Amino acid sequence: MKPRTPPGRIAYVDGRYSRHFEAGVHIEDRGLQFGDSVYEVCRVEYGALCDLSEHLDRLERSMREIAIPMPMSRGALTHVMGEVVRRNKVGYGLIYLQITRGCLRRDFQIPARCRPTVIMTAHELDRAIIAQRRSVGVKVVTLPDERWGRCDIKTTQLLAGSRAKTEARSRGAFEAWLVDGEGFVTEGASTNAWIVEGAGRIVTRNLSHAILPGVTRRVVLEAAAAQKMDVIERKFTPQDAAAAQEAFITSATGPAIPVVEIDGYRIGTGKPGAITGKIAEIYANISINRQT
Amino acid sequence: MKPRTPPGRIAYVDGRYSRHFEAGVHIEDRGLQFGDSVYEVCRVEYGALCDLSEHLDRLERSMREIAIPMPMSRGALTHVMGEVVRRNKVGYGLIYLQITRGCLRRDFQIPARCRPTVIMTAHELDRAIIAQRRSVGVKVVTLPDERWGRCDIKTTQLLAGSRAKTEARSRGAFEAWLVDGEGFVTEGASTNAWIVEGAGRIVTRNLSHAILPGVTRRVVLEAAAAQKMDVIERKFTPQDAAAAQEAFITSATGPAIPVVEIDGYRIGTGKPGAITGKIAEIYANISINRQT
Repeated sequence: MKPRTPPGRIAYVDGRYSRHFEAGVHIEDRGLQFGDSVYEVCRVEYGALCDLSEHLDRLERSMREIAIPMPMSRGALTHVMGEVVRRNKVGYGLIYLQITRGCLRRDFQIPARCRPTVIMTAHELDRAIIAQRRSVGVKVVTLPDERWGRCDIKTTQLLAGSRAKTEARSRGAFEAWLVDGEGFVTEGASTNAWIVEGAGRIVTRNLSHAILPGVTRRVVLEAAAAQKMDVIERKFTPQDAAAAQEAFITSATGPAIPVVEIDGYRIGTGKPGAITGKIAEIYANISINRQT
Repeated sequence: MKPRTPPGRIAYVDGRYSRHFEAGVHIEDRGLQFGDSVYEVCRVEYGALCDLSEHLDRLERSMREIAIPMPMSRGALTHVMGEVVRRNKVGYGLIYLQITRGCLRRDFQIPARCRPTVIMTAHELDRAIIAQRRSVGVKVVTLPDERWGRCDIKTTQLLAGSRAKTEARSRGAFEAWLVDGEGFVTEGASTNAWIVEGAGRIVTRNLSHAILPGVTRRVVLEAAAAQKMDVIERKFTPQDAAAAQEAFITSATGPAIPVVEIDGYRIGTGKPGAITGKIAEIYANISINRQT
């Protein structure tokens, strides 16, 4: 089935720029048959790619972890990303980059040799929606974390997260916070999870196979530490979140969105908090200097 | 990238029969971007589909569980499957059927409405290879089960299983037996796991979210019970397997393949056992009457 897209939209697939509605991959692409692929989503501001080197670092790590070779140099990849942004006339928006292991005869055994498929699309984001979320905050609900054991690799094994997000939305929440077998929050379905405890201490879960090493998470951690804010990486529970002063989520799409309610419990005053606001501000300031 | 395939091969995609090397899906198909799809693999014997109604029952269950609507009736699906087998001139082989949620604007939230993509391919299997495995048996190694929490749904969230199979092959084994957090075998990377204990008792893990409800598993269970063989569904450990009289794996590709070694330990005599042979024979006999 072909999607309905604006006629001018351009996608990059496997070495070619083509009209978005015509862009496809073969049915025996391992991305389609095994979820054997990795991806990145970068924010675009003023037509420039934000936190690009961090995204490319993580992409290279993901590919190393599942042994997909880089199909082109970082320089070439950066060039194509820039072209996709430019050809789609994106000022403020997102670029989506997916690299699959490629098209290979279907077999559970991963072939030693492959020619990866590179896919890129880009589109505008509605800034007003993000500004709205930032100004009033969002609700989250907790759900069991049913994802696989290697959430640190940014693969397209996304059905569990997608199901959780959908369930959260059906309950009137914006995001699902996933809870592991020991009762600790891992992260959001497509965001990292943060709380601010009583004395202004900012807490987010430590890195492990259970969570994605978020690019925005890392930039925020470094920036907050540089500002002498009190930040710590450790596990926390939904109860810790309900008792927290503030909470927020981070992702490339919306850095530091305030969370004002969890499972129906108001967090702090139930309004976006001052520390979350400061994080958003710090991020916005450094972000300007991080565009490529 | 287009695959190298024999020129006569035909695939069915989204309502059309097309040349296999030209068959594709759109880059925004949720099967590709989220692993949001289910599949079935049916064995073909004498040009007929084996255990078809069981495969269609499971397909419908998988789709119900992740809320993908059936894109066509069972009758229509059966007709197309038959056509794909016929057009590819498959006598003894496999048919692969994948149904994705369809092509939709990328969003973690699953859209309420969709038009699923139906994909089918078919190809011959080399009977000699399967006969060889049956006559000498295969080796397995145990690996941690890193798959997601809903392995009972036959989705394309297959990277963990695919990685395990690849690791097993690199260690000289045919299959990986996956071990859960409590130390019990769940199943093989793409097969169900069975052992035969001292007194001739046949054991396979009970159904839960942790394993796929294998079609061949179910047919074998029913057939063995009908033959008054001693069969039980319960968990077992790798140590139980190493101490067993016999072991075997089942799948649509190769029903009842003997397992003669686990993690370097010989199982029983280290040769295919009599009970495994009897199971294979019973299955072969009933299979003839189950073709559609």
